[in-house]
Amino acid sequence: MTDQLSLRELAGHLGCEFRGDPETTVTGVSTLQQAGESDLSFLANPRYRKHLAQTRAGIVVLRTDDAEGYDGAALLCDDPYASYARAAALFDHARRFEPGIHPGAFVDPAARVADGCFVGAGTVVESGAEIGSGVHLGHGTIIGRNCSVGDNSFLGPRVTVTAGARLGQRVIVHPGAVIGADGFGLAFHEGGWIKVPQLGSVVIGDDCEIGANTTIDRGALEDTVLENDVRLDNQIQIAHNVRIGAHTAMAGCSAVAGSARIGKYCLIGGGAGILGHLEVADRVTVTAMSLVTRSITEAGEYSSGTPLQPNRDWRRNAVRLRQLDDMARRLRRLEKE
Amino acid sequence: MTDQLSLRELAGHLGCEFRGDPETTVTGVSTLQQAGESDLSFLANPRYRKHLAQTRAGIVVLRTDDAEGYDGAALLCDDPYASYARAAALFDHARRFEPGIHPGAFVDPAARVADGCFVGAGTVVESGAEIGSGVHLGHGTIIGRNCSVGDNSFLGPRVTVTAGARLGQRVIVHPGAVIGADGFGLAFHEGGWIKVPQLGSVVIGDDCEIGANTTIDRGALEDTVLENDVRLDNQIQIAHNVRIGAHTAMAGCSAVAGSARIGKYCLIGGGAGILGHLEVADRVTVTAMSLVTRSITEAGEYSSGTPLQPNRDWRRNAVRLRQLDDMARRLRRLEKE
Amino acid sequence: MTDQLSLRELAGHLGCEFRGDPETTVTGVSTLQQAGESDLSFLANPRYRKHLAQTRAGIVVLRTDDAEGYDGAALLCDDPYASYARAAALFDHARRFEPGIHPGAFVDPAARVADGCFVGAGTVVESGAEIGSGVHLGHGTIIGRNCSVGDNSFLGPRVTVTAGARLGQRVIVHPGAVIGADGFGLAFHEGGWIKVPQLGSVVIGDDCEIGANTTIDRGALEDTVLENDVRLDNQIQIAHNVRIGAHTAMAGCSAVAGSARIGKYCLIGGGAGILGHLEVADRVTVTAMSLVTRSITEAGEYSSGTPLQPNRDWRRNAVRLRQLDDMARRLRRLEKE
Repeated sequence: MTDQLSLRELAGHLGCEFRGDPETTVTGVSTLQQAGESDLSFLANPRYRKHLAQTRAGIVVLRTDDAEGYDGAALLCDDPYASYARAAALFDHARRFEPGIHPGAFVDPAARVADGCFVGAGTVVESGAEIGSGVHLGHGTIIGRNCSVGDNSFLGPRVTVTAGARLGQRVIVHPGAVIGADGFGLAFHEGGWIKVPQLGSVVIGDDCEIGANTTIDRGALEDTVLENDVRLDNQIQIAHNVRIGAHTAMAGCSAVAGSARIGKYCLIGGGAGILGHLEVADRVTVTAMSLVTRSITEAGEYSSGTPLQPNRDWRRNAVRLRQLDDMARRLRRLEKE
Repeated sequence: MTDQLSLRELAGHLGCEFRGDPETTVTGVSTLQQAGESDLSFLANPRYRKHLAQTRAGIVVLRTDDAEGYDGAALLCDDPYASYARAAALFDHARRFEPGIHPGAFVDPAARVADGCFVGAGTVVESGAEIGSGVHLGHGTIIGRNCSVGDNSFLGPRVTVTAGARLGQRVIVHPGAVIGADGFGLAFHEGGWIKVPQLGSVVIGDDCEIGANTTIDRGALEDTVLENDVRLDNQIQIAHNVRIGAHTAMAGCSAVAGSARIGKYCLIGGGAGILGHLEVADRVTVTAMSLVTRSITEAGEYSSGTPLQPNRDWRRNAVRLRQLDDMARRLRRLEKE
Repeated sequence: MTDQLSLRELAGHLGCEFRGDPETTVTGVSTLQQAGESDLSFLANPRYRKHLAQTRAGIVVLRTDDAEGYDGAALLCDDPYASYARAAALFDHARRFEPGIHPGAFVDPAARVADGCFVGAGTVVESGAEIGSGVHLGHGTIIGRNCSVGDNSFLGPRVTVTAGARLGQRVIVHPGAVIGADGFGLAFHEGGWIKVPQLGSVVIGDDCEIGANTTIDRGALEDTVLENDVRLDNQIQIAHNVRIGAHTAMAGCSAVAGSARIGKYCLIGGGAGILGHLEVADRVTVTAMSLVTRSITEAGEYSSGTPLQPNRDWRRNAVRLRQLDDMARRLRRLEKE
């Protein structure tokens, strides 16, 4: 992370060609429309090509094709959005911190905190926990007994990780997330519920990101598992014993019920639900607010739900949904006549 | 806020007419059915008119029309529910507090906290933050670097506001809310995800209310914006770069995806979803658990979804949903014959 | 809770018959497939009967019928899952704690904390609160003024209970839950919203369980009530003035709007919604992501929504949903011809 970078330095960092004065420097990033001459910007979506002619950006990341006719300083690459992301990370101060244990932190003598960590005010690290080097535990974060957090992970503020959970390296956990609360296990007996103890744990791979107020339950007997590079947005619910394959991304408010297994490289839309004990193949996309009620064995895009309509039209059509089977039978009868 | 008010005082406060002994006093509020003689009550919904005859309430707020035949002490106004709300606020102790910085608070010397504030136990105010006068920061609340919170706002306990977010005056934020976590920005590159830095912030206007465990993400480059008097219930997800117009209210568990723009005076039902990059006009109502998949350009009420049925009927009809296009084609064929 | 139990002791605890050496001891629990000889396991679902022959479990809980041909140590009972749950609880360390008030806790002198309680770091107990014996208040938990928490309840870490809420005995509340935030009460007046004070409270019966990041709002004037043995999973929203009958269980991300009354022994599926001011009878099941828009007066299973399809098929059929009323009319016309 830095405060100022030249075109030459950026090209070196991204491993790409450039055009223009190699000493052109930028100090931040912005959109094509809003950038000033000290900003880096990018053109990835062709929809925004029209903004290129007017931009005042000091440097633009874009494809060689799109650079034709543009005479400003440019970084030329095949995937401008990814290159922009890597360049912008150099200017991202949010993950920058001074190492140190805040005097208001509570670190158990039997916990191990490696070098280069920050432990915030009101933050608790319980006995047996192992915190890798360069880890950030924001204010008010709770790390339970015997948890482990891998090097360079960034948690908090106000994250809860309960006893025994294991997080990999470079994991990011946003505020309010709860990792390792009990799964929802109940046995009905003699007119009431008996709680089924939740004795498994949670294992989260390297490079995962867990959104704000997302919850990931511990397993009942075995563990709940996120493989490497799983990306969860906010307010997501992952139930006990779920397994999510590497590189799968889930949008906000989606949920996976107990013991479901989601493949690798899946994309789960916002508010979508996946019922328990199902298997979802690799490279499956589920669109927003769809409900997966059976296992999906083939890659592809899947949907449920009905289109939005003006309420008056919707009411008229919705009544017919209750008659649909009847309509189908009557149609068949007419065909036979 | 007070402990006892007379009919005369209440009428003065509300600017309305009254009937009965001006010295009649009340010390609290209740429903028509449960009120005792020291309670203020109200009649707004005609459905409850039947309870007026039996009520023991000391004072009733109601329309002049509804007061006919009622001989108790009465406050007469055009909008009894709004008048009741304003009167009840006088008896609401929950927002009352003694100013002071709790000895267990952590206020950075480089933060500014104005007069009349409460800062709770375990509460953190980081450097550069500016807290206006009369602000309540409940226990365990985190205010990040360079945030600002306007006068007479009431946050917490256990609220998170991350670096740089700006809240207006008289904003209420309930426990567990997270304002300014990273938006969900990812670029896919060479078989895995690269995090796109989220460098914008969150701007919240005056008189907004943010529900418990609601999340509002910071913008990617520009800001996520709530205009004045936006009201969000619990467990709502507002993604990066969203803009919500003034006076819009959203019910629990609803969600707005990235870069959508919602108009003014909209009503978004519980669990409803709005996809990204859409525009929703002013004065649009979306009913509960509907999904908005396209921009809405005209005011009105919109819905999606299917009606609830006994499961056996639902199954029979749901099968036909998969055959609907086929049914439509067969119907057309029959019509042509 | 214990570290080692014999077959004889377990049979005594469960009040059931056993087979095998009474001194066989186990020190933990596991699945049939993964158990070693020091583990207790169970066979409840006939699907897993195939694993019985190969299991290395020291003791198995199962039905007498299923025990035929199995010659290992066995606990014989009618309801193996419930018996397993009761046995596993003996090995559950997560609810075990050393009583004590953490030096980093903030207990108001005017609060009462009974014997055998744990109060964590950064935990706040405000004036007038009454905490029963054997209660666990995890790190960072906030108990507001005049709250009461019954004996042997287990809260936290990072739970919020606001002023005046009353929790029964043996209540479990998971991290991030918020009990008693304001209900969403607004009156529209002269072009903007007036907040309607939320002056009721929350009452939670004995043996309830509240999931991580679940929110239960206080009532507007009367209380929001959970009767005994109500079980709520994670990320659930319970609005003001709701009443939920005894032994009802709700799965993750479901929600109940204001003033709805849910019966006893109901099962509400994940992501399901129940609109406000409805009544749902006893023993109603609502399947996942269904929306209840009218009162349900009879026990039974209810559903809404559409089946998942490949997106291409879904699009073709979804278009027809907008034409459904038209199709119904055309069908009727053909029948008349």
